[in-house]
Amino acid sequence: MVAASSSVVAVYPLSSYTFGTKEPKLEKDTSVADRLARMKVNVAPPQDRELVFSHVVPLFTNFSWFLNYELIKEVQEHNHPHILLLQIGNTFCKLPGGRLKPGENEIDGLKRKLSSKLGANSTAHQPNWQIGECVANWWRPNFETVMYPYCPPHITKPKECKKLFMVHLPEREYFAVPKNLKLLAVPLFELYDNVQRYGPVISTIPQQLSRFQFNMISP
Amino acid sequence: MVAASSSVVAVYPLSSYTFGTKEPKLEKDTSVADRLARMKVNVAPPQDRELVFSHVVPLFTNFSWFLNYELIKEVQEHNHPHILLLQIGNTFCKLPGGRLKPGENEIDGLKRKLSSKLGANSTAHQPNWQIGECVANWWRPNFETVMYPYCPPHITKPKECKKLFMVHLPEREYFAVPKNLKLLAVPLFELYDNVQRYGPVISTIPQQLSRFQFNMISP
Repeated sequence: MVAASSSVVAVYPLSSYTFGTKEPKLEKDTSVADRLARMKVNVAPPQDRELVFSHVVPLFTNFSWFLNYELIKEVQEHNHPHILLLQIGNTFCKLPGGRLKPGENEIDGLKRKLSSKLGANSTAHQPNWQIGECVANWWRPNFETVMYPYCPPHITKPKECKKLFMVHLPEREYFAVPKNLKLLAVPLFELYDNVQRYGPVISTIPQQLSRFQFNMISP
Repeated sequence: MVAASSSVVAVYPLSSYTFGTKEPKLEKDTSVADRLARMKVNVAPPQDRELVFSHVVPLFTNFSWFLNYELIKEVQEHNHPHILLLQIGNTFCKLPGGRLKPGENEIDGLKRKLSSKLGANSTAHQPNWQIGECVANWWRPNFETVMYPYCPPHITKPKECKKLFMVHLPEREYFAVPKNLKLLAVPLFELYDNVQRYGPVISTIPQQLSRFQFNMISP
């Protein structure tokens, strides 16, 4: 039996963190369609595809993160948690993360991806990424845009599983944001029930985080 | 730092369980509006209301549950988890649960409510309720129908907090269903993205459960 008490997450104010910039990180794909086309080609030559798909779930595991802190002064007074998103162009928002290398441990892979997106160029000054709780899994049954928070019946070989983890930040940290991306801190109330703007994965983060008790630490 | 491994939940087939009936459990309220009116009156006389609301969150904590098993033969083959819901009348579905007594421990209160709704009349044959993980919290900021998966900014005294827990079933169990209610086993794929039919709380259970790994046990 699992204890039913709530997990407590420490959330520090924005003033705890320092943000810099670094060279652009070009996105490999400019649309979801491009990404799906690349996934198909990269998996395996067509003749081997059936075989490779038998263990495609760990191979394609993706990672995302949450950094919770207060950005806007008005909101800070009300102690409302925010989620860090990367904005590409004028409207498209995504969670940082990416694909695992074959055989790579999921925690190691997520740390590698976080450092690549937001770590300083110097390996001596990498953030100490504290990977926390898994908060959701999303499955892509076919090479199509639609994903589900379960593996649908009849699907024995899903093409991708995207796994979302909470990332706990220490009290002080330095982040380097690629010049072609914007780092946005979006409050939970902006994400909630806003599937049109943020899509089904990001817009239901508030529900997935509702089980946590946030300990909002004052500046 | 919390380990990032997935929680594993054992899910037994329907044939593991026995279902009987018992006398009707009349619902105290026939609509959400009735319930809100009753909440207002029950909290405290108007002159004391401000004081009582200062600790209303634990007082109003509500509980709900999930029992995951396979009901339909076709789905059973595909190992897809189901959620147990109570149907009242022809369309309205709810999770079993209810209000805590003042000062009552939340686990004790949930067990009391589950036994009241689904336990046999004999206290000697009560199910061994295994209350598991908290999966979500929903806040009601005012005496109105709308709830949020966070306490909205500006709200210092929410009127109700509904807390959803997973309930783990043993391999065998007997349930007594009140004659005026129907017990429904609804697959995750029926709930997902179906806010029109199930409302915002129940329709996002699939996302909240996606972090668990279900170990589907054969009959």
